Amino acid sequence: MRVLGIDPGLRNLGWGVIEVTGAKIVHVANGICHSAPGEAGEGDLALRLVSLYEQLTAVIRTYAPDAAAVEHTFVNKDAVATLKLGQARGIALLVPAQAGITVGEYAPNAVKKTVVGVGHAAKVQVDHMVRLHLPGVQIAGPDAADALAIAICHAHHMQSAGRLAQALKRAAG
Amino acid sequence: MRVLGIDPGLRNLGWGVIEVTGAKIVHVANGICHSAPGEAGEGDLALRLVSLYEQLTAVIRTYAPDAAAVEHTFVNKDAVATLKLGQARGIALLVPAQAGITVGEYAPNAVKKTVVGVGHAAKVQVDHMVRLHLPGVQIAGPDAADALAIAICHAHHMQSAGRLAQALKRAAG
Repeated sequence: MRVLGIDPGLRNLGWGVIEVTGAKIVHVANGICHSAPGEAGEGDLALRLVSLYEQLTAVIRTYAPDAAAVEHTFVNKDAVATLKLGQARGIALLVPAQAGITVGEYAPNAVKKTVVGVGHAAKVQVDHMVRLHLPGVQIAGPDAADALAIAICHAHHMQSAGRLAQALKRAAG
Repeated sequence: MRVLGIDPGLRNLGWGVIEVTGAKIVHVANGICHSAPGEAGEGDLALRLVSLYEQLTAVIRTYAPDAAAVEHTFVNKDAVATLKLGQARGIALLVPAQAGITVGEYAPNAVKKTVVGVGHAAKVQVDHMVRLHLPGVQIAGPDAADALAIAICHAHHMQSAGRLAQALKRAAG
């Protein structure tokens, strides 16, 4: 099963794809979709969102994930930044769902707890643990590392859910 | 020239299309794209955004606007509400841009100033002036009235820009 993790952002949208076989996790690819503010003026923000949409659609077409997960951040510096993040997050949720992929959402603390073991881990610890989980992998940047952490988190949660379903089946049988 | 105004929202996304011929403004259509929270659980938000995307795409296909404008709200009650609004706004900006339509953005005060004459007009005044501008029109709800106000605002700004360009041309000629 292939899992796509997305760390949404308007300027830099990180993504990471992992392959999950039983308890084994293997790196497939990671990267960052960029959409820098241009000089277009009117309609610039809309065109940046179109660019993110197209880049993320290409990622899904290339790596054909079976599941996706997006970080659920809503606390931000200010309302302007939160609105910008929301716009990018809208695209991050839309694109996999349009491809028929169920999109999971995880709070940053849930991601940290799964990957590092504690909910209040520093960003550098998350990055470190992602590299330990996926040894030798070239990571495109901090946003791509976060995206891989989200994918790992989603894989763990799906495995736990699977084990729980099996246990319930055994208990009922 | 046909102008589409959009008042973004996750649950209710208002839209309104007007036809502009010189100084004359005629109503074409208005409505609300709904995406109520469902019981789907995982992936529900993503599916709501897919639904908004499809409804808004259908509006553009049906009424073929030449220009579009979206309200630029970023002040909201709290970060959660702002993020939700941002997600819906992302779709509202994306869909017209994907159809090759330039998307203008107006702050709520600019819309009020154009339609009512003062920047701090109450919502009910905007609604009243929209009905005066477009007599006898059935309006689907407050979000659709706001969307029509945004379309009227964009039409006025485009006319002013056009007159300015003509004046500059005359001055230069």
